[in-house]
Amino acid sequence: MMNNARQTQDLRSVSLADIGEADLLRLLAEVASAASNQSLVVGPGDDAAVWRSGSAVDVVLTQDAMVEDRDFRRVWITPQQIGARALHVALSDIAGMGARPAWCLATLCAPGATLLDDVLEIQRGLVAAARDTGCALAGGDVSDTAGPIVIDVAVGGTLDGGRCLRRDAGRPGDVLVVTGTMGRAAAGLRALDGAKLTASEPSRTLWKAALLAPRARIAEGLRLAEAGARCGGDISDGLAVDAARTADASGCAAEVWLDHVPVDPDLRTAFSDAWVDIALGGGDDFELLAALSPVVVGDLLRGWPTHLAPLRIVGRLVEGSGVDVLTAEGGDRVAGPVVSSRHWR
Amino acid sequence: MMNNARQTQDLRSVSLADIGEADLLRLLAEVASAASNQSLVVGPGDDAAVWRSGSAVDVVLTQDAMVEDRDFRRVWITPQQIGARALHVALSDIAGMGARPAWCLATLCAPGATLLDDVLEIQRGLVAAARDTGCALAGGDVSDTAGPIVIDVAVGGTLDGGRCLRRDAGRPGDVLVVTGTMGRAAAGLRALDGAKLTASEPSRTLWKAALLAPRARIAEGLRLAEAGARCGGDISDGLAVDAARTADASGCAAEVWLDHVPVDPDLRTAFSDAWVDIALGGGDDFELLAALSPVVVGDLLRGWPTHLAPLRIVGRLVEGSGVDVLTAEGGDRVAGPVVSSRHWR
Repeated sequence: MMNNARQTQDLRSVSLADIGEADLLRLLAEVASAASNQSLVVGPGDDAAVWRSGSAVDVVLTQDAMVEDRDFRRVWITPQQIGARALHVALSDIAGMGARPAWCLATLCAPGATLLDDVLEIQRGLVAAARDTGCALAGGDVSDTAGPIVIDVAVGGTLDGGRCLRRDAGRPGDVLVVTGTMGRAAAGLRALDGAKLTASEPSRTLWKAALLAPRARIAEGLRLAEAGARCGGDISDGLAVDAARTADASGCAAEVWLDHVPVDPDLRTAFSDAWVDIALGGGDDFELLAALSPVVVGDLLRGWPTHLAPLRIVGRLVEGSGVDVLTAEGGDRVAGPVVSSRHWR
Repeated sequence: MMNNARQTQDLRSVSLADIGEADLLRLLAEVASAASNQSLVVGPGDDAAVWRSGSAVDVVLTQDAMVEDRDFRRVWITPQQIGARALHVALSDIAGMGARPAWCLATLCAPGATLLDDVLEIQRGLVAAARDTGCALAGGDVSDTAGPIVIDVAVGGTLDGGRCLRRDAGRPGDVLVVTGTMGRAAAGLRALDGAKLTASEPSRTLWKAALLAPRARIAEGLRLAEAGARCGGDISDGLAVDAARTADASGCAAEVWLDHVPVDPDLRTAFSDAWVDIALGGGDDFELLAALSPVVVGDLLRGWPTHLAPLRIVGRLVEGSGVDVLTAEGGDRVAGPVVSSRHWR
């Protein structure tokens, strides 16, 4: 009895700062499960939920918040980039489902001292990104706040022919592919943060742009789904974390083949031994990861359109659990980073 | 040239605190119009947007944020009530469109020092309200923040047979009806804020509950749409403001007949001469307003189900612009309050 009372007391004194994001999300999802229903074909565990309206069209739903001094610092990013980034970060989950953007809703909370011009610039950036991605801005809310700027974007997308990339649809033997290049955004964060990096000016510029102006891989997600991929998602928390998430949802383990992971040559130089952490554990890349049958992957790679971000094999799903990072020599396990370094602080 | 330069300079120094919410929303909407497209059957100007997915089902979309110390004070409201209120406030716009709730997405930003138990209680309140209203919780985001708690809820609804209550569908001669009782939430705000009010304890309790635990008038909105109403919306900023908004969107003027406005007798006593401001200018009532043909209103009132919030005639739309508040003597104009006192500060 006393123990129970003490445990209850202890739980009551736990604050958000004491609990990891994964544990918090799990606890919130447990509570949320009471408000799920049959209209959700895919529930909150994936990159986005899928709502079936009773008609032929499934609607993919997700929401992402950006908080000043946590997800962005105003000294590094222009107001237009803030608006565009907020939408692309939310759309990345739509891309990770293999869906087509349809609409967005955007809420902006900003202190009263914020310049009107900056607020309109944020809106202009968001609107330009919405137009670029075929997303109708359907509304939202605006509020003043005594705290940091918060931009919260809800987005909806549609699935072509019901095809969908789910986290839980992988099988042992599936090949893991990624779009683009890993670690650029994390390298950009360090470059902006004043780290002395031996890297060319073009590389630094590329890395900063990867962080400040990400583009959701929408066309790539649609192409993957069209080509028959059924398992995948976006890489928002680093390849190691997102491969583990995908493997775990699919009841598998993931092997990541380190020498196959696409990274800029300059990144290895600039970060020496830490390049693996940057490439596998750095968040905010917003590339895509998919798992698909080795039978179809050859055709997919050969037919991959050159105007899309390049697609590369980086590992596979196997029986078991967890994620192993393997070197070229084969079999040697590398202690892989599994903690994301996503936040700008 | 110099004048232009000076004007540009002036505009650049305007902050959010210098500009009214209506002007800000207008400026944001001007920017947003570039990202509208044909999939939006109703655009951002209404309570909610309507997105046509290509199938038979139209989806109603809206998003509402609640910011601590602006839209709620933690000393007055329990965490469960915060969660439930955030959803009902968002759903009020769905009700105002005559739509049926389908799904919601909820983002919570809270300081690291927030108790986990309080966060889970907020989630429980939101989830219970979602279940009560047939709304599937499809996901959302959670983030820490250095500022006040922000809860941002996006909701989607469906239209039965495409019937919809639009702000712009009214015509001169239409009768204005409202659900429920006006001014309770504003009275509750003043009671909580320590105003000495000569009102019975049951009245005070009712008023506080109206503010802290509003219920979106979903069944009432569906019934209005089913009965043939095509013009309406929710009353979030006070009857005067929302009647003016509806009249303006419809290219009409609104007459509000003061003696027909449903208010608690105690409210007139408690606020003496200020009762009109409370009843017409008090925000957060979250009742519904509709404009419909005098031909159908009799049948609607006679057939109105008794388990719904009562429906009452409060005025009409006429040729012209603006809103006139008329007394029983007829023709006397009362200087109606048109500034909402919605905020809890």
